[in-house]
Amino acid sequence: MSLTIWCNTKFNPAATARLTAGVGAHRLVWAETVSSNVLQAGKPDALLATADVAFGQPLPTDCLNHAGLRWIEVTTAGYTRYDTPEFKETLRARGAVFTNASEVFADPCAQHVMAMMLALGRNLLPSYRDQLGGHDWNYEQRRYDSRLLTGQTVLLLGYGAIGRRLAALLAPYGMTVYAVRRQTRSETGVRIIPEEKISSVLPLADHVVNILPDNAATRGYVNARRLACCKPGARFYNVGRGTTVDDNALLEALRSGRLGAAYLDVFEPEPLAKDHAFWNTPNCYVTPHTAGGRHDQDEALVEHFLANLAAFTAGGEWTDRIV
Amino acid sequence: MSLTIWCNTKFNPAATARLTAGVGAHRLVWAETVSSNVLQAGKPDALLATADVAFGQPLPTDCLNHAGLRWIEVTTAGYTRYDTPEFKETLRARGAVFTNASEVFADPCAQHVMAMMLALGRNLLPSYRDQLGGHDWNYEQRRYDSRLLTGQTVLLLGYGAIGRRLAALLAPYGMTVYAVRRQTRSETGVRIIPEEKISSVLPLADHVVNILPDNAATRGYVNARRLACCKPGARFYNVGRGTTVDDNALLEALRSGRLGAAYLDVFEPEPLAKDHAFWNTPNCYVTPHTAGGRHDQDEALVEHFLANLAAFTAGGEWTDRIV
Repeated sequence: MSLTIWCNTKFNPAATARLTAGVGAHRLVWAETVSSNVLQAGKPDALLATADVAFGQPLPTDCLNHAGLRWIEVTTAGYTRYDTPEFKETLRARGAVFTNASEVFADPCAQHVMAMMLALGRNLLPSYRDQLGGHDWNYEQRRYDSRLLTGQTVLLLGYGAIGRRLAALLAPYGMTVYAVRRQTRSETGVRIIPEEKISSVLPLADHVVNILPDNAATRGYVNARRLACCKPGARFYNVGRGTTVDDNALLEALRSGRLGAAYLDVFEPEPLAKDHAFWNTPNCYVTPHTAGGRHDQDEALVEHFLANLAAFTAGGEWTDRIV
Repeated sequence: MSLTIWCNTKFNPAATARLTAGVGAHRLVWAETVSSNVLQAGKPDALLATADVAFGQPLPTDCLNHAGLRWIEVTTAGYTRYDTPEFKETLRARGAVFTNASEVFADPCAQHVMAMMLALGRNLLPSYRDQLGGHDWNYEQRRYDSRLLTGQTVLLLGYGAIGRRLAALLAPYGMTVYAVRRQTRSETGVRIIPEEKISSVLPLADHVVNILPDNAATRGYVNARRLACCKPGARFYNVGRGTTVDDNALLEALRSGRLGAAYLDVFEPEPLAKDHAFWNTPNCYVTPHTAGGRHDQDEALVEHFLANLAAFTAGGEWTDRIV
């Protein structure tokens, strides 16, 4: 079986070489426009019509139009553009497969959340501001403002690959970890709660970690009503999607002191506007959608794809199969 | 048995109340000068002559002069002032006990190192500099500069209470953890190496974490010769003591690029002089001796002392006994 594999992601030379070698006897075709930014939608591309497999960010409408496509792997964890009943039902009806790259981004996202939680706990950012400024030695204040994660309570909004990895990284701190998700099957070390129970757990959480994807059910999920349930001084993190948060409600919760701090990596829209209040509001910290970043991202995406290519051609376990 | 317990540490009201209640029928006497800064040596105090137990930072010469002292607990992990053959032998000859407060500071120090490692890995400080400056959205650069701890190699210089806690926090990252210490008995998950093997392990380490105390054997330990053995781009952390590092050699290693970054919490002398090159050298980050900080430090020190008071009066396991 020789497949035609279409790709519209621009990888670095080493990853490109690995992909070319890894596909072996299959035919690799590159889209007319390739991009290294995995968060942007691809362009329409006529070559997709010839392909059995699409790898990258194919346009959803192109995918629907080309009935010959038997497997699509996207180079992101988020897949909002593809997350419609029409798209998923069409693929299912054709017997086609849809995979994302959650496993590539789960570890960096979880480490990013750990970095955010610990940086706040250890006052790294105020100390760095002192370093950039007057070289003040705020020894006593920073020490007594330091907070141990040990024994605290965390609530995860959403619980998939990132949440599982995060729970593993949190395990040695002896924290109580809650997670909200729709399927309430149990997980080791994590108390899974259904969505309707969230208002009873929010008041317990020292840390609220938003990992929600963007879809019709999650838009505006973190709203004024839910923020009002938070424990005073709680810390809020967002590595999910910006659409799931009501920006004004979050700013108000920071200004009133209901939230002690917010550390945000995702926004709607991105890039975050230069005059957005998130940049300047006290106790609000911003990273530029870097939670999923890893220096070996290209190599990891290619390895993820090649492992699934083996599953597709030889049979075996898919990784991150959605349809 | 009613003991006289002398204390020269100033605790917050809640911790003071807990101490007062906790000593029960024993007599608690406060030194004429009390201080909340546990890193500074105490003042001479005549009242110490009446005490069976000293808690805080008693002057070492006072301790040697008062043969009635049967137990001394210091409110720090470091105990350089007391770490002399004369002091330890005198106490041993009297059958007196000396304890420090390592367990109080081990968890915050270990979390501080985790915060430093992850903050560098996730580029939190450059992103925060962007936030304080022009609100630039350096998405692509920061993502591809991000480094996962997963699979990397760490070398700990010194391995006591902090090192053990740090090894536990590092466990989920699947790193290779080496530690140098004099006693080479084995430890779960950590490869203990003797000092003479350090030059063969330094070239393997992505992260070198200095947890060495200050004593005659450790002064200037991190010198030009050892830094020259480091893996190019390695990251160096210091939460031990400033005296263990040759500042100029460290600066040279940063300037030459031999070290990718240094994150320093301790210095000689402290506070770090406002014109010291550590503040301004690229890839050098400073926190003001806050690694051991915890908002509940006073309560934790009092609980540590009261648990040892029970060991002293009723028999049982001491915590952090040195003599």
